[in-house]
Amino acid sequence: MPYVIGVDLGGTNFAVGAVSTDGAQQRTFTSELTRRERGADDIVGRIATRVADVIARTIAETGASEADFLGVGIGAPGPLRRIDGVVVLAPNLGWRDYPLRDRVAAAVGLPCTLENDANCATVAEWWIGAAKGAKNVVGVTIGTGIGGGLIIDGALYHGSSDVAGEIGHTTIETAGRRCKCGNYGCLEAYASGPAIAERARESLDANGASSLSALAGGDPMALTAQHVFDAARNGDALAIEVVRDTARYLGAGIANLLNIFNPEVVVLAGGVTGAGAQLLAPLQAEVRRRAFRPAVDVVRIVPGTLGDRAGVVGAAAAFLAETGKGA
Amino acid sequence: MPYVIGVDLGGTNFAVGAVSTDGAQQRTFTSELTRRERGADDIVGRIATRVADVIARTIAETGASEADFLGVGIGAPGPLRRIDGVVVLAPNLGWRDYPLRDRVAAAVGLPCTLENDANCATVAEWWIGAAKGAKNVVGVTIGTGIGGGLIIDGALYHGSSDVAGEIGHTTIETAGRRCKCGNYGCLEAYASGPAIAERARESLDANGASSLSALAGGDPMALTAQHVFDAARNGDALAIEVVRDTARYLGAGIANLLNIFNPEVVVLAGGVTGAGAQLLAPLQAEVRRRAFRPAVDVVRIVPGTLGDRAGVVGAAAAFLAETGKGA
Repeated sequence: MPYVIGVDLGGTNFAVGAVSTDGAQQRTFTSELTRRERGADDIVGRIATRVADVIARTIAETGASEADFLGVGIGAPGPLRRIDGVVVLAPNLGWRDYPLRDRVAAAVGLPCTLENDANCATVAEWWIGAAKGAKNVVGVTIGTGIGGGLIIDGALYHGSSDVAGEIGHTTIETAGRRCKCGNYGCLEAYASGPAIAERARESLDANGASSLSALAGGDPMALTAQHVFDAARNGDALAIEVVRDTARYLGAGIANLLNIFNPEVVVLAGGVTGAGAQLLAPLQAEVRRRAFRPAVDVVRIVPGTLGDRAGVVGAAAAFLAETGKGA
Repeated sequence: MPYVIGVDLGGTNFAVGAVSTDGAQQRTFTSELTRRERGADDIVGRIATRVADVIARTIAETGASEADFLGVGIGAPGPLRRIDGVVVLAPNLGWRDYPLRDRVAAAVGLPCTLENDANCATVAEWWIGAAKGAKNVVGVTIGTGIGGGLIIDGALYHGSSDVAGEIGHTTIETAGRRCKCGNYGCLEAYASGPAIAERARESLDANGASSLSALAGGDPMALTAQHVFDAARNGDALAIEVVRDTARYLGAGIANLLNIFNPEVVVLAGGVTGAGAQLLAPLQAEVRRRAFRPAVDVVRIVPGTLGDRAGVVGAAAAFLAETGKGA
């Protein structure tokens, strides 16, 4: 059985794994801290070491041979160009115009492809996860940022310069909160993990009494979205309000996608979806309130089933699609 | 040369024309008032009369024969189902679940197709107009309402239940103005013709002094978007402010489409685009401020070139695409 190595490169960690070309086997996943401060070449070197390690372990575990490894699919953040494999801008890595694909290819000695990380997560859920078999899919990854991917008529859609799917950077308030992208009122500025924590902090500043202060150890700057979800689950009024607002913002953004794309499935992934039903149920209700009925009637809005593996699996799937070898 | 008849059905007028299957000839266009109060069957009867008339005149003018007319493409507002040719909901016509396609087919004795009117305008501009030859196109029609259409990888995209492209009904202010669709904060609630007039009226109520009062004959309810554009062109401060806000709202909505779709062309059509550069220039500036640079760099945001004919031409083109006969 042939394999593809998937690499999921994030600002905090990178993960590497082997995925069989039918998607059925996903094995020997490893991950380590990205340590962006060490610079791009150092990161590439450690990615190559991990790739070699995963290949060796997969061979040991399955009896596969070196020749069974077709190549490496890389998922990376930010606007990028597939044609020359360059990461155009990745603030979380401190990169600008970095030729990641060719650097990794040179280091591992295998063909490589480069794909946007949120696209990878979407492709993975469509290939073997929650959106399997659907024709039109929107993936929304909600974590440190909010990314997105679009499967249209059964294929990943890239747009005219590989920017398509930047759902986190759609305006939901024209004069709204400042976003890291430079714009105002982006969905990401309201509903990413850090944005949820920030809104909770502001609410604490204004209102004071909440179990959130204690959860964050008395340091508002230590407050995370996870604290907010935990407190809301325990009945904290301020946290419940912050979660409800988060659902409202995400619901508005996703309703926009329903009215524009009319997909069969919206797959939610990323750390924030760990909040579970307390976020998902009001989010779905908000979408029903806002989107057109014929669009609501045909869509499922569901959490992804691949969890942390989505990035690696999708990077491998993107390699297969890009090189015409399947997926 | 074979022909297709295009029918563009709106709440105020309907138009009928003959279009050659290569798009090169568009002839004998006629239009009349829709008169929705007479009911659907009456409208269908008058459409059939006009179709017969256009066919007869085209035959007389070109020497074509009856057999050269392949069928009728109908463009109509509102959510609709292509599969059974039913208009699901058209408030401006007072229709719900009306089997328009088959009623027209029975009346004219030719095969018919049904397509959304904003999709038709987009297809027309892509077929022979401002977006000719582009791969990924967003069409935005700004008039009594705001509609949209998407050409993706060289084909009209319908979504999973024919709702795709409802760009006017995307939220740009989560707690914003009430929209006719029932939602709050839709782009249409800010930047359609009636919405522009309404914002100007509110501004007049609040500020008083403006040449707009005189333009509307002293009756604020008679104020139209055209009055606002005329007054702005003549230096009226209040009107200039309303136009600037309109550009800002449209710019935010279109920037969202750039970040989601990353098209090569955004084609603007509909009455509001008659405002010209005073609206288009600040709109383009707002898009540049808001959208991702690699998306801005590859896109042209341009007015359509087909004007009033886009609906009829696009309905004919949609017939060809739907029946597999071309376009």
